[in-house]
Amino acid sequence: MLYLFDLVGVAVFAFSGALAAGRFGLDLLGVVVIATVTAIGGGTLRDVLLSRHPIFWIRDQTYVIVIAITALLTTIYARHFPLPGDSLQIADALGLGLFAITGAQAAESLKIPRIIVIVMGTMTGVAGGMVRDVLTNQIPMVLRGDFYATAAIAGIALYLVLKALGVRPSWAFGAGFVAISGLRLAAIFWGWSLPVFRLGS
Amino acid sequence: MLYLFDLVGVAVFAFSGALAAGRFGLDLLGVVVIATVTAIGGGTLRDVLLSRHPIFWIRDQTYVIVIAITALLTTIYARHFPLPGDSLQIADALGLGLFAITGAQAAESLKIPRIIVIVMGTMTGVAGGMVRDVLTNQIPMVLRGDFYATAAIAGIALYLVLKALGVRPSWAFGAGFVAISGLRLAAIFWGWSLPVFRLGS
Amino acid sequence: MLYLFDLVGVAVFAFSGALAAGRFGLDLLGVVVIATVTAIGGGTLRDVLLSRHPIFWIRDQTYVIVIAITALLTTIYARHFPLPGDSLQIADALGLGLFAITGAQAAESLKIPRIIVIVMGTMTGVAGGMVRDVLTNQIPMVLRGDFYATAAIAGIALYLVLKALGVRPSWAFGAGFVAISGLRLAAIFWGWSLPVFRLGS
Repeated sequence: MLYLFDLVGVAVFAFSGALAAGRFGLDLLGVVVIATVTAIGGGTLRDVLLSRHPIFWIRDQTYVIVIAITALLTTIYARHFPLPGDSLQIADALGLGLFAITGAQAAESLKIPRIIVIVMGTMTGVAGGMVRDVLTNQIPMVLRGDFYATAAIAGIALYLVLKALGVRPSWAFGAGFVAISGLRLAAIFWGWSLPVFRLGS
Repeated sequence: MLYLFDLVGVAVFAFSGALAAGRFGLDLLGVVVIATVTAIGGGTLRDVLLSRHPIFWIRDQTYVIVIAITALLTTIYARHFPLPGDSLQIADALGLGLFAITGAQAAESLKIPRIIVIVMGTMTGVAGGMVRDVLTNQIPMVLRGDFYATAAIAGIALYLVLKALGVRPSWAFGAGFVAISGLRLAAIFWGWSLPVFRLGS
Repeated sequence: MLYLFDLVGVAVFAFSGALAAGRFGLDLLGVVVIATVTAIGGGTLRDVLLSRHPIFWIRDQTYVIVIAITALLTTIYARHFPLPGDSLQIADALGLGLFAITGAQAAESLKIPRIIVIVMGTMTGVAGGMVRDVLTNQIPMVLRGDFYATAAIAGIALYLVLKALGVRPSWAFGAGFVAISGLRLAAIFWGWSLPVFRLGS
């Protein structure tokens, strides 16, 4: 079940990575590379930091195959049929929700402090997109306001609280996922953001 | 004792990260993210490369808490009271000195060649700031002349030589730290730099 | 034998890194830093992901010494004698070929799926150059068309097919290397590229 969610998260992020790559005039393989780092970046960083070897996509080639197919289909589809302008951000919001909670679960299974579980889950959710933005030479989306990592932190905290209250794990998972993706989408559509901090002139 | 120095180094780098973030109009959480990668980036890279698990801030949540509090206090303070223009560089110089020597010590405890101890210590000192600069879309400070990594290398070498001469470790530590931060600050104030190498037109 | 190829690959990439750094007016140490990350970045990422510790350049200081000397000689030479304009790209093509195949071999020795061996080999070949380009604030060469990672994938696949057909490993190695560097050089000189994918306006 978790495996399926993981594959969906990977596909959703590969889709967002392929769309982002399309804005920069990369070749087909560049698109697949960006889609891949977007999709597996967060989980890879999590596994390296937690020393969980072999890393999920090295052991199981399904991930890389799903990413390559998603990136190619996205490229082909998007050349012929215009996609809604916010497709990238919606896919990104769903991927964020899935990866933040599954990342927190992976961290939870080790004996580490609760606050670090939140950090690891958030990182799993945001790191892939950060690498995507750095490689395409942009300041990462997560750093530019708009309730991004904040949504992940809130949703993971909700998930942990619900579990501590005895709620069934799958319900807590669902609630956390809906909270993260929902908060992020709401922030996009209603323009929510945290106060911006600017120093200097 | 080392633990305390580590926390001070983390706080100093979190302060510099928060100030750097303030120049880019990030939101509060973006500030905390930049402060965090600046503060733990170097040590995390060192621990991953040396396979020292669990990584210091995963095992012990104090680091993350110190960083978050420092970043928030810096943000609040800096909005109301102007800080001297070179606060960021001074904090960076102190963090560089602390992290370079503690990084070298961590590497030293494993059986690796002396020259690699210098490389690992320097990396611990500079990598966090490099990630900070990459995420805010700038060519890293360490690459732009100004006696930066050079100061770290010189100070770590001094620390290793003093220890080899039989000086007490804590004195060697102090001498190395003062050498690095002092050289870096002197380079800032008197404009020292290594010769710049430029090719092409 | 493999060790020698590895050192040649490291030197070739250090040369390309030093030339790239020369375009950005870095100081001498900045040149060495860029040369180092270019030369060991790919292999280090591979070893971290595969959990192969101790990492090659930490165990054996020869790598770092070869890199530093190459970077310094490149700097000195290039200031006095103009190098052909495509020296960087030729060195990069040779390094790509060497690292992609040795990276694939390192991955092959573990029990991982064949397609992941290709991914790891390609990553070993391209990651160092990607870090070089990110640090000098450019969109990575590998993402900008021109048959780059594509050449690595094709050559590693050839290497694996030849070995599966019973060809002697050293011949398969040679064929894969020649295929990668040759395809890459041909792509530079005849302007081959994969179709570019551009979305939006």
